[in-house]
Amino acid sequence: MSNFKKRKHDSKTGETRLRLGMQHDDFRNAAHTLVDRIIDYHKTVSERQTFPNVKPGFMRSLVPDQAPEDAENWPEVFSEIEEVVMKGLTHWFSSGFFGFYATAGSYPSMLGELLTSAIGSIGFSWLSSPSSTELETVMLDWLAKALDLPKFYLHNGTGPGGGVIQGTASESTLVTLLSARDKAIRPQLSIDPNQCRHDINKRLVAYTSNVSNSSVEKAGKIAFVDLKLLESDEMGSLRGKTLLDAIKEDKKNGRIPFYVCATLGTTACCSFDNLEEIEPICEKEGIWLHIDAAYAGSALLCPEFRFIAKGLECSTSFNFNPHKGMMVNLDCSALWFKDSSHVINAMNVNPIYLRHEEMGRAIDYMHWQIPLGRRFRTIKLWFVLRMVGLDGLRNHVRRGIAEAKHLEELVKTDERYEILFPVVLGLVCFRLKPELLGNKIANDENEKLYEAIHHDRRFFITPASVGGKYLIRISTGSLNCSTAKLDEFWKVTREITDKLLTKNKFTI
Amino acid sequence: MSNFKKRKHDSKTGETRLRLGMQHDDFRNAAHTLVDRIIDYHKTVSERQTFPNVKPGFMRSLVPDQAPEDAENWPEVFSEIEEVVMKGLTHWFSSGFFGFYATAGSYPSMLGELLTSAIGSIGFSWLSSPSSTELETVMLDWLAKALDLPKFYLHNGTGPGGGVIQGTASESTLVTLLSARDKAIRPQLSIDPNQCRHDINKRLVAYTSNVSNSSVEKAGKIAFVDLKLLESDEMGSLRGKTLLDAIKEDKKNGRIPFYVCATLGTTACCSFDNLEEIEPICEKEGIWLHIDAAYAGSALLCPEFRFIAKGLECSTSFNFNPHKGMMVNLDCSALWFKDSSHVINAMNVNPIYLRHEEMGRAIDYMHWQIPLGRRFRTIKLWFVLRMVGLDGLRNHVRRGIAEAKHLEELVKTDERYEILFPVVLGLVCFRLKPELLGNKIANDENEKLYEAIHHDRRFFITPASVGGKYLIRISTGSLNCSTAKLDEFWKVTREITDKLLTKNKFTI
Repeated sequence: MSNFKKRKHDSKTGETRLRLGMQHDDFRNAAHTLVDRIIDYHKTVSERQTFPNVKPGFMRSLVPDQAPEDAENWPEVFSEIEEVVMKGLTHWFSSGFFGFYATAGSYPSMLGELLTSAIGSIGFSWLSSPSSTELETVMLDWLAKALDLPKFYLHNGTGPGGGVIQGTASESTLVTLLSARDKAIRPQLSIDPNQCRHDINKRLVAYTSNVSNSSVEKAGKIAFVDLKLLESDEMGSLRGKTLLDAIKEDKKNGRIPFYVCATLGTTACCSFDNLEEIEPICEKEGIWLHIDAAYAGSALLCPEFRFIAKGLECSTSFNFNPHKGMMVNLDCSALWFKDSSHVINAMNVNPIYLRHEEMGRAIDYMHWQIPLGRRFRTIKLWFVLRMVGLDGLRNHVRRGIAEAKHLEELVKTDERYEILFPVVLGLVCFRLKPELLGNKIANDENEKLYEAIHHDRRFFITPASVGGKYLIRISTGSLNCSTAKLDEFWKVTREITDKLLTKNKFTI
Repeated sequence: MSNFKKRKHDSKTGETRLRLGMQHDDFRNAAHTLVDRIIDYHKTVSERQTFPNVKPGFMRSLVPDQAPEDAENWPEVFSEIEEVVMKGLTHWFSSGFFGFYATAGSYPSMLGELLTSAIGSIGFSWLSSPSSTELETVMLDWLAKALDLPKFYLHNGTGPGGGVIQGTASESTLVTLLSARDKAIRPQLSIDPNQCRHDINKRLVAYTSNVSNSSVEKAGKIAFVDLKLLESDEMGSLRGKTLLDAIKEDKKNGRIPFYVCATLGTTACCSFDNLEEIEPICEKEGIWLHIDAAYAGSALLCPEFRFIAKGLECSTSFNFNPHKGMMVNLDCSALWFKDSSHVINAMNVNPIYLRHEEMGRAIDYMHWQIPLGRRFRTIKLWFVLRMVGLDGLRNHVRRGIAEAKHLEELVKTDERYEILFPVVLGLVCFRLKPELLGNKIANDENEKLYEAIHHDRRFFITPASVGGKYLIRISTGSLNCSTAKLDEFWKVTREITDKLLTKNKFTI
């Protein structure tokens, strides 16, 4: 019989176990062992195999098929962190992890997550947790100033603008698309209130580039609006003329262009839509311009990288992920509206059990997002901004970009490879030259190269396809990334290439 | 000049600070002080004022208006937890918190959140973090078995069913509505591929009761489908006849009924839609039946409360929040599909940079949810299920319900008040009797009572309105709720009522 059963009705300490799941002192001891384990993990994570040797279904043999009746003790659970969790983990914090875009994390952020869970307040309305709402508004102003965003995005500005933390960039895009949809439909209904909103929605059309993140396309599906993936140019950039042609054609056909999602730092190849060309068009046509800078936004901390966002002044909403480039753990995606009334109009359903006496005088973030519930995510952001400081964060950003520049130079030393897009921030896209392989496309060969590196298991990488070209993308700047590790990666890549070429593996 | 600046290029330890935001040893020390602080908070939280004396905008004077350039040290940040965060907090874990529905939390869950942030892996696809995906499938099976859900919801069952963790019940409802919308449109398009999907969507109609959570209505807005709020009966329950009448009427008008969201444990009054009447109708009509048991689901851990879910066997999807009744911190909302292919069909956009060689053989949870990114939230669920055990969780559920029964008895001792809905789980809805006030409605008087209790600040409560009746709702079962505290609450409520009656405050 477990301790829990023995103690549960006994005493004050038994009461603690019943309510909090553990005694206070047991929690203290457990937390100490866990903290030691976490430090050890971070000291040695790069010695682990970045991607595990497991196959789908491996977990079933490691874990019982039902929950225990009686409480187990911490030492039992603790020992299985290695055997169960670590066994099949992709180690995103390993120095050999170059996949997707690096995720963020830091000790101050972990402390923040711990405090957030200990407080447990749910900040959907101002009433439900005033500190949560208010610290969030101040932190979003801190961020906006640190990135030198237009003043209209400040809560403390003169207008109706302001920022909010979303879980992910996907949600940020969706929320802005829904806001823009509502904003586009209202005036049509005011012209003729008898119109069916479905008939108006049918006429709406949104745009993004065909290199945008898949979450933009997904947002279009969810919002049930027609979203066109416009052709980007050979640099992976959406150009003004392409957008303008699409708008003209659609307007000719009675459609209502209402939303553009432009990307700074695409997922596939870290390309940049041409804001300077796009913005005057959106402004003239009254189209909502959302900037998805999920990845690239953190670079705006550094003045020398702000050229990527030239033309930002005319945007309607702006999003970036501190959980990508700013040492804050997922989930922390920062989203700003030039005019927050649009999102509130689109999302507000206001039952009496959520109303309060400060309504209208205070922000209720539940109307700025999809879910009702929201964690107090600002604490980790507050901890990181203070305990790392803006200067420290800029160094973090610069380190990641310098690493990419370093790899770029390495790739250039071997004529068999080519760099496919300019290395502007922390992403290098390369492939084996088709000429080398006597092949105009060489996608299959480059896919074989990707697979060989993936199966070698020393590094975790991800491929992409842009403009019909298969490429290998290396994301730098993760917690433990280093030029030394990139040297090693490049050595291994060349060796694997040699083998593939020797063995004629590339003959299809 | 901060330590950070001094150390950053110096040595190996300086490197740690640059990458992780703190030295390893500083993190250990900081974590220890934070853990002590958390224990102290939980020991004394009920001595704090549940809702703070703050007004909108209070935070601006407590926090600088921009982020620091240089890194600050932990002691500076730590000291402001009290001055900034606690200053304006609604203490959801206080024994005097009876608002909304209680949120969950426990020491094992906090340990889980800490480990999740330390690992930092993002589990959108199987490849991106196999352990994250696989432990989630096993934990959702554990939960389904513990709640005695139909077998078709098991991953390890024979069919295409399975569960997933969503952030909130709002997202669960939305995801099922989107899945059902897609499932309803596809066959229409296969009859006539030239049909416009907007014209089909226009014909779709979804139903829920007018006592459902506001997030259901919000999901309808987001998904851009017509969602009808059907009249519940005097017990706050959606009845079969009401639904059937609506369906018949809509079909007569050429509409396509496709989705019903039935609630077990409504937010306003913990009422229960009549599943036994609703299910055969949905089955006959081929309508997707989603069960929102966000609050009440945890009660299914206990066999004696399973009568509330009679008729569950015919549902299409089922959702409940372990972060409400099961000692797991927000966010942890469990959602099951009878056939997961529908959600994948509705949500899948599959760019090459997210593809992998195990696709089709493994679950990619990104296709089961709105966002792309997802935290490794299963760890806290796994910790709680093991370290509390099913027996412990059942005791936790029973304690909260017994507290509500206790308050119900107290209310019944004073003839001035009436209980408005049966006390089935951990919610008591009461009001001052209209007869007492010589008033047929007495909504204003009861609102005054609510406001007086709220401004007294000893307890945090929330009101609701059901069937035109304003009521005060008391949610029990929170971490530190107790019958002693409910005695105190009832004493204060009676005293406040006495004062209001004496002072003729109720004369309007």
